[in-house]
Amino acid sequence: MSKTRLVIIGGSAAGIQAAISAKRLHGSELERIIVIRREPEIPVPCGIPYIYGTLGAVELNIVPDAILGDAELIIGNATSIDREAKTVTVDGGTVVKYDKLILATGSRGAAPPIPGSDLKNVFTIEKDPVYLGQVRHALEESSDLVIIGCGFIGLEFAEQCQKRGMNVTIVEMMEHCLALNADEEFCTPAEDEIKRHGVKIIPNKMVRCIGGQEKAEYVELGTRERLKADIVILAIGIAINNELAKKADLEIGETRGIRVDEYQRTSDPAIFAAGDCAEKYSFFTKKPIGLRLASIATTEARIAASNLFEPKVKNPGIIGVFATSVGGVAVGVAGLTEKTAKDAGFEVVIGDTITVDRHPGTMPGARESRLKLIFDKKSRKAIGGEVYGGLSTAELANGMSAAITGGMTVDQLAVFQMGTHPVLTASPIAYQLVNAAEIALTKF
Amino acid sequence: MSKTRLVIIGGSAAGIQAAISAKRLHGSELERIIVIRREPEIPVPCGIPYIYGTLGAVELNIVPDAILGDAELIIGNATSIDREAKTVTVDGGTVVKYDKLILATGSRGAAPPIPGSDLKNVFTIEKDPVYLGQVRHALEESSDLVIIGCGFIGLEFAEQCQKRGMNVTIVEMMEHCLALNADEEFCTPAEDEIKRHGVKIIPNKMVRCIGGQEKAEYVELGTRERLKADIVILAIGIAINNELAKKADLEIGETRGIRVDEYQRTSDPAIFAAGDCAEKYSFFTKKPIGLRLASIATTEARIAASNLFEPKVKNPGIIGVFATSVGGVAVGVAGLTEKTAKDAGFEVVIGDTITVDRHPGTMPGARESRLKLIFDKKSRKAIGGEVYGGLSTAELANGMSAAITGGMTVDQLAVFQMGTHPVLTASPIAYQLVNAAEIALTKF
Repeated sequence: MSKTRLVIIGGSAAGIQAAISAKRLHGSELERIIVIRREPEIPVPCGIPYIYGTLGAVELNIVPDAILGDAELIIGNATSIDREAKTVTVDGGTVVKYDKLILATGSRGAAPPIPGSDLKNVFTIEKDPVYLGQVRHALEESSDLVIIGCGFIGLEFAEQCQKRGMNVTIVEMMEHCLALNADEEFCTPAEDEIKRHGVKIIPNKMVRCIGGQEKAEYVELGTRERLKADIVILAIGIAINNELAKKADLEIGETRGIRVDEYQRTSDPAIFAAGDCAEKYSFFTKKPIGLRLASIATTEARIAASNLFEPKVKNPGIIGVFATSVGGVAVGVAGLTEKTAKDAGFEVVIGDTITVDRHPGTMPGARESRLKLIFDKKSRKAIGGEVYGGLSTAELANGMSAAITGGMTVDQLAVFQMGTHPVLTASPIAYQLVNAAEIALTKF
Repeated sequence: MSKTRLVIIGGSAAGIQAAISAKRLHGSELERIIVIRREPEIPVPCGIPYIYGTLGAVELNIVPDAILGDAELIIGNATSIDREAKTVTVDGGTVVKYDKLILATGSRGAAPPIPGSDLKNVFTIEKDPVYLGQVRHALEESSDLVIIGCGFIGLEFAEQCQKRGMNVTIVEMMEHCLALNADEEFCTPAEDEIKRHGVKIIPNKMVRCIGGQEKAEYVELGTRERLKADIVILAIGIAINNELAKKADLEIGETRGIRVDEYQRTSDPAIFAAGDCAEKYSFFTKKPIGLRLASIATTEARIAASNLFEPKVKNPGIIGVFATSVGGVAVGVAGLTEKTAKDAGFEVVIGDTITVDRHPGTMPGARESRLKLIFDKKSRKAIGGEVYGGLSTAELANGMSAAITGGMTVDQLAVFQMGTHPVLTASPIAYQLVNAAEIALTKF
């Protein structure tokens, strides 16, 4: 049997994961794995805000190419795909033959058209170390930063830049930070914490324009109020890198992602798509959703790699699990929030509990932790969970994701068997996940 | 309908949880909840080692009675149960009527009969603040501590007493610390860490006797070697408090626990048992097991409370989830280890991965983390997991417990949807639970 040549376009989370998983799962069947990527170096995507504070340097946030193992790396821009000939053309010249192709072309920052966005010192967030170095240079020469958008990336940028001693203001269209990701009671602790650190938040406000001569000097709100700014970061909006796929006449989905079936196959059976560039569907509603996360990208890449030779592993739909950390407060979400669940038409039952994340409460380092579970009244299954607390918050969110994936009901979760430890968790009597379920149980 | 009187005997983890859950789930049907317990005050059981270091005082490790809400508390020793009359006699006098009774009488420290155990300054570990105060007093006047037994309690005591500046030696019968709880590669990191802090570990050794005039002066090993000791802690062996149940002619199980069915009902349908005093069965083999943990106690108490009026919630059997922390290393286990799975007759497939628990690896505070999953080859289901790493270790173990409870297979776990964050978790590409599963998948 002649061996297969796998080509992957894109070298960030999905591209790297596709190369690793394909090698791991199909090493003996693959002749070569070729990764084509535009950038000479790739930043760790989630690490980008930390370049400007905790890490302190772009070079400390680079994915080492060694992670690709013996996959071959071509640095260049894939300009077209010939689906008939099964080739990819790079930089208008080099032609690379493929048997199987995985598109992992990702997304890029793309704010709505705010007048003044083209001024100097106005930046989006790009997964490109050269660009990120320019941001760093500009931050070093600035003192008044305005961030537009307070999703988790905006929030993390604010925290990190505030650490540099900058005056940081965030302008947010909605009532709270993270308002698209979490219910209000899980947004405010992060918001309060970042304010406590000196960041100013302006909620419920639209930006009218960015003003200045050549270089950004202020941000003007819809109310005509002007905020001093010598640097502006647009932490809103992304554009899907679907141009290559469009040019190759692959189908595009409703949220502008490359259309894929549940095996991550595009409309061409030899071509898969994974990560930000691929269309996504909700685990809960099966409808297209706009969520884009590095963790989702790697999951889809693992699924695509699994299905290279035959359809084996289905994508059950996106649960949506994320976590962020601001100062000493971390927030994690898995699945639907109370709001998104209701919006999707679920009749929900809520269990909500507040405790501390160590025990006894006198333990040094103990932090307040709140956890809320959202159950579907009909099936009694967990369809979402939100948590805030200390450093174990993200793994608590991941535990909730396991409960959701495993189809656990309120009855199972109310007697869920957890391990507890004074330094590491809440007490068994106060354990958040179980208590939230037991409380929900009384409302069914 | 006349209301029900619930009596609970025992006021530690299971007793407290039974009172809370009974009130929460059946508040309107209960006339009174009466808790009978021997001790005027109850320590947080898992917090006991921390009294002697991090916390610094017995009083900082007391469960506040307010946790019992409006349950009535009787301080006294329940000496007999009259099942015919449905009464409990306290201290040979007071008679308390019950409609439903939950036994949560717990366990006590009980080391094997080592000659010299009756010397002064030889202690077991008891859930009694007065006794724990005596231990504290003795520790204050001592400098050479020998701990017999290096399970997690022995290990935690060693860490805490070493912090006091004592010379601490642990004698362990088996080859490693925690050897009954985890596979070797998860025992050694904790062992290495505690040694690094200056604790001496003597593995593979039996204790022949404790010697001294009146007061402990040395521990003599089977090899006749003598270890200087002015205080000795026996961190091995427990005895089940089943005497009251025996006297009432309730059936006793193979591991000396009060026999219960899957609804936590004893051989008397009006009497339930939960926690250390109750017989337990393995989730995996359905056979009786000797494991006793506060977390299990609370789960069983929640089950017993659920079933007070009708059998509703089954105990699926004990998964066994625990975590401990020594210095900067935490270890967590959920379900079977590779060894216990093989001993139980499972054909296992292992996935094992090592990474760091933050990303990029240059993040301050990043710690090495290893995670191993144990799958049943036949069903492809996860039957166990072990992890070491930083502060999120216990919640990672709890995530594994959710995966086991939810019946997740290797195929599901290899594309499990997790959330990741630079400060809170490994990178999505390195995420332990998923990678361990993907690695296991290649071996099926």
